[in-house]
Amino acid sequence: MSDEQACWQGIPGGVTAAQGFRAAATRCGIKQAEVDDLGLLVCDVQGTAAATFTRNRVTAAPVRWSREVVARGGVRAAMVNSGNANACTGERGLRDVQTTAQAAADALGLVPDNLLVASTGIIGHFLPVDKLLAGIPVAAQQLDSSLEAGDRFARAIMTTDTVVKQHALRCDLGAGHVVLGGTTKGAGMIAPNMATTLSFLTTDAIIERPLLQEMLCRAIELTYNRITIDNHASTNDTCVILASGLADAPAIEAGTEAAARFEAALAELCGVLARKIVEDGEGATRLVQIDVVGALTVADALAVARAIADSPLCKTALHSGDPNWGRFVSAGGNACPSLDETKATFQVGDVVAYAGGMAADALPEALAEAMAGRTVRLRYDLGLGEASATVWTCDLSKDYITINADYHT
Amino acid sequence: MSDEQACWQGIPGGVTAAQGFRAAATRCGIKQAEVDDLGLLVCDVQGTAAATFTRNRVTAAPVRWSREVVARGGVRAAMVNSGNANACTGERGLRDVQTTAQAAADALGLVPDNLLVASTGIIGHFLPVDKLLAGIPVAAQQLDSSLEAGDRFARAIMTTDTVVKQHALRCDLGAGHVVLGGTTKGAGMIAPNMATTLSFLTTDAIIERPLLQEMLCRAIELTYNRITIDNHASTNDTCVILASGLADAPAIEAGTEAAARFEAALAELCGVLARKIVEDGEGATRLVQIDVVGALTVADALAVARAIADSPLCKTALHSGDPNWGRFVSAGGNACPSLDETKATFQVGDVVAYAGGMAADALPEALAEAMAGRTVRLRYDLGLGEASATVWTCDLSKDYITINADYHT
Repeated sequence: MSDEQACWQGIPGGVTAAQGFRAAATRCGIKQAEVDDLGLLVCDVQGTAAATFTRNRVTAAPVRWSREVVARGGVRAAMVNSGNANACTGERGLRDVQTTAQAAADALGLVPDNLLVASTGIIGHFLPVDKLLAGIPVAAQQLDSSLEAGDRFARAIMTTDTVVKQHALRCDLGAGHVVLGGTTKGAGMIAPNMATTLSFLTTDAIIERPLLQEMLCRAIELTYNRITIDNHASTNDTCVILASGLADAPAIEAGTEAAARFEAALAELCGVLARKIVEDGEGATRLVQIDVVGALTVADALAVARAIADSPLCKTALHSGDPNWGRFVSAGGNACPSLDETKATFQVGDVVAYAGGMAADALPEALAEAMAGRTVRLRYDLGLGEASATVWTCDLSKDYITINADYHT
Repeated sequence: MSDEQACWQGIPGGVTAAQGFRAAATRCGIKQAEVDDLGLLVCDVQGTAAATFTRNRVTAAPVRWSREVVARGGVRAAMVNSGNANACTGERGLRDVQTTAQAAADALGLVPDNLLVASTGIIGHFLPVDKLLAGIPVAAQQLDSSLEAGDRFARAIMTTDTVVKQHALRCDLGAGHVVLGGTTKGAGMIAPNMATTLSFLTTDAIIERPLLQEMLCRAIELTYNRITIDNHASTNDTCVILASGLADAPAIEAGTEAAARFEAALAELCGVLARKIVEDGEGATRLVQIDVVGALTVADALAVARAIADSPLCKTALHSGDPNWGRFVSAGGNACPSLDETKATFQVGDVVAYAGGMAADALPEALAEAMAGRTVRLRYDLGLGEASATVWTCDLSKDYITINADYHT
């Protein structure tokens, strides 16, 4: 859906676009670089919240903490640091979360149970608690509802990201309007599974927690869970949405037109943010959309799309812009036992490269041109059924190696 | 098992080490480079043969041909070309195999049903049949049982390989000796699944086909099927063993000591060749052995080992020699739902990096040293059960990108 046809329209801002949210960020010195590494996001009232978390069995301490906070309800604020993941830090890691959550609660006039905590950065190092304790009151003093404050929060969660990632929408519910906004980070260890990298979403909609959680899970399944940079789900993936309920609009009830519109806008927000992650993947020069259609099941379609999206051979061909379609076609052949090569069709952009089990009559120049853009679309029609799936990925460049070979413990 | 304790010892040579085999290679011009690109391997007598092939549903024409030839029995010879995979070439691809197999049969005084055919190289281009028809009689004229002829055959199957890969063993059966030898190729699109890249094995043992097939499948399951370079099984994977039966030793019968010894030697041969592939992986600078132990099931152990072996994040850390163990530990956490981080231990070489859910007291210098060699051993003890698995892989370097971004259609 384009913005014109849809019930939403893009507006400036991120986490502070909706009514009822203040954000702040400060540099507390976790990172050596002179950048902000601590962020606070606060909802002015007791609204509702929903969240999803990594399924990695190696789970960071803040994820273990935040899962319980969200399950109990009553989330009022989120504290996030970059530069240290507080993962693989055992019981001390959990104690460090408690200590810093208590400090943030004190500074904000809340209780620790109101505090969702998220971390991103190096794995296996203890959190520099003293630095956080010094930075928390400074950040709390600066809380502000301006778009600039949201922007600063968005920058504080960046790791190897090269650009800030935020987006906001105004959604027409039919009766009344609500605003949704959010920010997210990349840029490596990206293959979300029922969760995301770090993602903070806000809205001023009035909506109960169970419905919000349902909508968030469905939106993520088709957006964050369909992106991959390096097929490595992180220990710290967290996606949270806070709803202030301060919009001048009726409460959103399950099964209504307003609910459908809100969920469409939420999916759009998650989709835009997720694609921003891929576009800024470590070393990435192209955003690649892989549409698999004509499959017997969605699982088959997804398996084929993921096999291409995670194949280093396909990703290096995408990097060079070489229409080496044999790599794409054969990656699919590994992933789907029902695939019949005589029925499959593979195309780059609008150019059919492969059909009937062999090369199609495409002009090499036309294929090369379809591979050459900043955005590349691949389409694999299995010719077997009606199911389909879309996955987004990026190319694999030497810069990915540089970034990840040099990111030292 | 080391050679000293084992029933086998390494000897010079490859496919012509065993009695009853002749090999040859010639340049017929499929490749632009001035190198041999056509090989013939002939058994002097009607022995037995077994083979395994790719499970990729996108299957090259020579694989479709050879599957039927092997199923019917009566394999006497193998013809192989490099430079063109004859994959994704439809019915014409199959006709081209028939034409060239007939020509080889004529040149060798055999029938086409005696001919196993294998190809490797670019996907999606038709075989240059005229060049093969011109080269086949030339190669047939040069067939020779010398080690040099075997060496030349081994070179003719190379694609992006930088070194020739062959190995031979003399196996003491208890009563009598047999010889096994073979050659294989890499170096990209490597993640065999019940088959291999191209691999040609020979022996002079007397052994019936069903027993030979069983032993080959078991040997491959623990060797070729446990290596990965880029997690992309090819369209052309073929592993064949030809047994001439010319050794001065009794027939090998199932369930005997001699069968156990022969199978151990066959597994050793496959293991040595498979590791040579990984060691020469595209852009590889290190051979990495990943031992996962203490798992509840072999499937769990294998899933953890493969997750590490195929993670670009782990492979770039291996490339830089950085003991960034968080990447390895978390890759395992994604792959195994039964993993409990408080019970797991991860070590690099003999140095424990992670235990009890957090960093162990390893000296950074000791860890770095354990990561620095040409061969690196990683060991992940899940602490849950008795099952284990070993997978071999290589690091991921910029040269992999160069090789694969520049390998044009």
